[in-house]
Amino acid sequence: MQATYDNIADMAKPLPKDMSHHFSDATKARIPSKTKEFYKFFQIPGIGQLAGGLPNAHLFPFDTLEAQIAQPNRWTPSSNRPGADDEVLSSKMTPISISGSTTASHVVVPHDAPTSDVMRKIDLASALQYGQADGYPPLRSFIRQFARDCLHPNVPYRGGPEVIFTVGSTDGMSKALEVFTNIWIEGKNDIRDRPGMVTEIFMYSNVLSQAQPRGVQVVPIEMDEEGMAPHGPGSLEDVLANWDDSKGKRPHFMYTVTMGHNPTSGVLSLERRKEIYSVCSKYDVVIVEDDPYWYLQYPSAEVEEAKARNLPIPEPKPANTLEKKSGYPFLDSLAPSFLAVDVDGRVVRLDTFSKTVAPGCRMGWVTASPEICERILRVSESGTQQPSGFAQVVIAETIMGPQSEASAAFAGRSAKDKTTFAGWKMDGWVRWLAGLRGVYERRMVRMCKILEENAYQLKQSTPMRDADSDWGVITKTKLYDFQWPRGGMFLWLHMRFETHPLWKAAGSKGNVIDGTILSTALMIFLTHKPYLVLVSPGLMFSATPQIREERGWAYYRICFAAETEENIDSCSLRFAEGVQRFWRIKNVKEIESLLGEAGSEQAEEDMTGLVNMGSWMGC
Amino acid sequence: MQATYDNIADMAKPLPKDMSHHFSDATKARIPSKTKEFYKFFQIPGIGQLAGGLPNAHLFPFDTLEAQIAQPNRWTPSSNRPGADDEVLSSKMTPISISGSTTASHVVVPHDAPTSDVMRKIDLASALQYGQADGYPPLRSFIRQFARDCLHPNVPYRGGPEVIFTVGSTDGMSKALEVFTNIWIEGKNDIRDRPGMVTEIFMYSNVLSQAQPRGVQVVPIEMDEEGMAPHGPGSLEDVLANWDDSKGKRPHFMYTVTMGHNPTSGVLSLERRKEIYSVCSKYDVVIVEDDPYWYLQYPSAEVEEAKARNLPIPEPKPANTLEKKSGYPFLDSLAPSFLAVDVDGRVVRLDTFSKTVAPGCRMGWVTASPEICERILRVSESGTQQPSGFAQVVIAETIMGPQSEASAAFAGRSAKDKTTFAGWKMDGWVRWLAGLRGVYERRMVRMCKILEENAYQLKQSTPMRDADSDWGVITKTKLYDFQWPRGGMFLWLHMRFETHPLWKAAGSKGNVIDGTILSTALMIFLTHKPYLVLVSPGLMFSATPQIREERGWAYYRICFAAETEENIDSCSLRFAEGVQRFWRIKNVKEIESLLGEAGSEQAEEDMTGLVNMGSWMGC
Repeated sequence: MQATYDNIADMAKPLPKDMSHHFSDATKARIPSKTKEFYKFFQIPGIGQLAGGLPNAHLFPFDTLEAQIAQPNRWTPSSNRPGADDEVLSSKMTPISISGSTTASHVVVPHDAPTSDVMRKIDLASALQYGQADGYPPLRSFIRQFARDCLHPNVPYRGGPEVIFTVGSTDGMSKALEVFTNIWIEGKNDIRDRPGMVTEIFMYSNVLSQAQPRGVQVVPIEMDEEGMAPHGPGSLEDVLANWDDSKGKRPHFMYTVTMGHNPTSGVLSLERRKEIYSVCSKYDVVIVEDDPYWYLQYPSAEVEEAKARNLPIPEPKPANTLEKKSGYPFLDSLAPSFLAVDVDGRVVRLDTFSKTVAPGCRMGWVTASPEICERILRVSESGTQQPSGFAQVVIAETIMGPQSEASAAFAGRSAKDKTTFAGWKMDGWVRWLAGLRGVYERRMVRMCKILEENAYQLKQSTPMRDADSDWGVITKTKLYDFQWPRGGMFLWLHMRFETHPLWKAAGSKGNVIDGTILSTALMIFLTHKPYLVLVSPGLMFSATPQIREERGWAYYRICFAAETEENIDSCSLRFAEGVQRFWRIKNVKEIESLLGEAGSEQAEEDMTGLVNMGSWMGC
Repeated sequence: MQATYDNIADMAKPLPKDMSHHFSDATKARIPSKTKEFYKFFQIPGIGQLAGGLPNAHLFPFDTLEAQIAQPNRWTPSSNRPGADDEVLSSKMTPISISGSTTASHVVVPHDAPTSDVMRKIDLASALQYGQADGYPPLRSFIRQFARDCLHPNVPYRGGPEVIFTVGSTDGMSKALEVFTNIWIEGKNDIRDRPGMVTEIFMYSNVLSQAQPRGVQVVPIEMDEEGMAPHGPGSLEDVLANWDDSKGKRPHFMYTVTMGHNPTSGVLSLERRKEIYSVCSKYDVVIVEDDPYWYLQYPSAEVEEAKARNLPIPEPKPANTLEKKSGYPFLDSLAPSFLAVDVDGRVVRLDTFSKTVAPGCRMGWVTASPEICERILRVSESGTQQPSGFAQVVIAETIMGPQSEASAAFAGRSAKDKTTFAGWKMDGWVRWLAGLRGVYERRMVRMCKILEENAYQLKQSTPMRDADSDWGVITKTKLYDFQWPRGGMFLWLHMRFETHPLWKAAGSKGNVIDGTILSTALMIFLTHKPYLVLVSPGLMFSATPQIREERGWAYYRICFAAETEENIDSCSLRFAEGVQRFWRIKNVKEIESLLGEAGSEQAEEDMTGLVNMGSWMGC
């Protein structure tokens, strides 16, 4: 019944629009695969396979692949609606039906699973063989269902989105750039052909090193604590409406992080998404939405921030008011993707296993219209092919478990192996994500509290010269301010260098001690004992050199995810103490000596080198 | 002493030449990474890590990764010099010092290995974290040593080659194309700017779908049973010397498979390599050498072929007469890479774990001059990043074993885990490769024998009309001929369709039954019971439509690697019987009905679709 209703409802939706005019020349030149027409020959039962160049699976050196894996309930979740009813565990999520130990299960991927159904076959013979570029069939089918039914049940175009695997979101973005932008070379190509990419003024810098060699012009859009600004000065609409063609093609491509923005930590509301989408529709812009931190949304941030600042506690309001629910209160409590408002089929969403499982998976997926996914598939076939079978099969086995009664017996070599472990399933997967959110949310709160308490420097000023008495006044200097992160892994600190005693002082070479100098000096100062912490300067996250010069120096990004649990408090304190001490530096020479440690006199220029560090820092 | 001698010898070598003029515009535009300048901050002992965006390794859901792995001596090797002394097991290779079962060992990758030395640290906390785009340090260091000391000890330029990991050789080729060729669009760019790629007339077709969207002109070079022809009509020198600039830029890029050529199965001799290299030097061509089958060279092929044909048995001659040896007779018996003669630093070699371990690794490496590797590293950083940590760490643990005494105790949960397994080491790795060669070589010989015995059709012809008696003559029709493969996974059969009774017969629509029609019809005929085998038509491996039309139809590629051991003989027999039966077809309608099964009347056009199947067929 539901299916019938859904089908009728689906038929009433518009088809996604043709987006092929956005494709790059090379993408247009790719020939559609005729694989399907010949696939039938491969499917003939019992056919002797002399055609393909597959090595024999019997000769792989692995007889099993095994792992001790966490139970999905290893970590305690946090509340979906702090202050309201606690919806942490939904009826759908309890009880977690994992047998055996509460800490870990042993999973075994056998060499050969006793089923011929490729959607249920999870074994080394299939996973370690050449495979399909869109993903390992059982795992892709799980992720496709998860994406369509749980993450994005409200996609407004007919048939809904497709899913294709990538080797991580950096690869996803690289493919999106290849599909949607031509390479443009200065001095060789017409400036009016130069492709443009709109993005937030502060951004994940690795994307810059992806765009730059293609000659893509990065066009920064103003943002607030929530994310990109749709209207107003410097906003998306402002930039597109007043585009000057003599500086390049009007951008038709947006890169955006919308859930736990990197580096600014905002989460884009549904209302804001509608406004931005409407501008993109008007100016025909493709939206590439990159959200590795989507499940790390922190409803407690607003509440705890208000408490810490003695402000009125805000009413909890739902982030997702869309009609269709996933059935998982945790997922339904999160801000939805741009896909939820994607009437035209212009949204390309990048997801990754890097933060939900581990970066070493090198595995992620794109969710987009079938037309766009097909183009990405063609790119994958002639480049990365599929993600690693090792990663795909271990994660498939972890989530899906042995796919038949026979499997356990088959794989079973010992009592331990004969566990009745049945995989996390969708419930376990969601529960795992909710647990991770809990861990990171608690870390975030602890770090914010410590930084909140140390944001001011209290100083007794010297008595006024013309006063009789020797009493001074207590001055309160603000060292930094910040919004408690609404999502993600980072605090974005606005450093108030203009309150530093040496602000705009004269340097020893007649130069002025400016924000960039103070930012770099403090970063280095903090790496000294006893502070001994490394932070990322905002210079690294500035979309353009101009933003870097004008505003990038005023920020630090601080990550609460990487350090060990027990170090969070001490690192936060050491940071705060280092900042306090830095504000007591009164000698320009001390600042200049810190800069010397950067390995060059031109500290600022060196700092721009940091932009290239993004890929291996995973930031 | 040796080291000093080596250093002096190395200093006497020329530096590799500057190859930057070969780089594409986008590659030239890539900014060198300044990571190293700032890496020192990350290395400060005890530094609180608030800078990067790494998730906490404690939160990965895997506590161990484990596997049952084969012993390196699982498969019996074949002889390095058939007919001569048996050098199968060298002094270096015996005894294989693997304790425990002779069939399998259990390896355990712990979550945290108790060492801080990144070259020896093999654990999940490091392998599943963000990593370096050039490869997981312990495994990369193993492969680098293997490549430099064992595979290519004779590289003639100073300092020797570098190594960088890829996510497989398709990715390696994709990156080579990106580094060395500009995208060229018909009707938009000047024809004289069109990049060209020289390659053998028959080739691994997936490369065509990589070159085509970039507008790269594929320029076929004549070949013989050994490989590419350096001189003579249609040869490399002929094509380059007589290049017509009005048809595109003279190719500066070569794609070649030189050891077990796909599809033609030749192995390029050292002498031939020198000749080709000299032409490449003269015309400044970069050589991309893609050799997934390098360790599958079959010295017995020549001998067994001669025996089967009652020809004189040739004297065994060494394939590698270069000065420096690896110390492994197996490796030293193989034809060397173009790197062995690469004075200029113009060779980019692609290797892969797909055939030595499993295609599902999605892992390989490039060996080339440091300058070229640096450019590929830049491309990797903004695309694929590193190969999957799952694959890297399992293979590192398999080959290298626990890296300290403490490791085994640390990882040890059970008696089984406390095995003293110490990893295959270099000896084990070479032994494993020699074993695989043995398996495939024996399969090759079995298949060739069967096909050799069935290469003719014997027929009693009808008595001559003007003769008195009723005796006929026995005619012997050659159905196919072939060279026994000198390497790789394939037989390349020259099908003698011109001897078919319907050759050039009139079709029902007045068309002529030509080679393409017969090739397609036989391919389909063979998928019918009782033959039930699938072969790859040569149409699929033709470098250009012209080669396909003129000659591609005359070949089939037959793989002896994919089928199970017990099916090799029966598949070979079924193929041979199917061909015999096909040559008895005398009715054009029967041919035409077979073509109908291709799903279209235009069988030839459909066949070209097969070209795109390469990526997932792994051929």
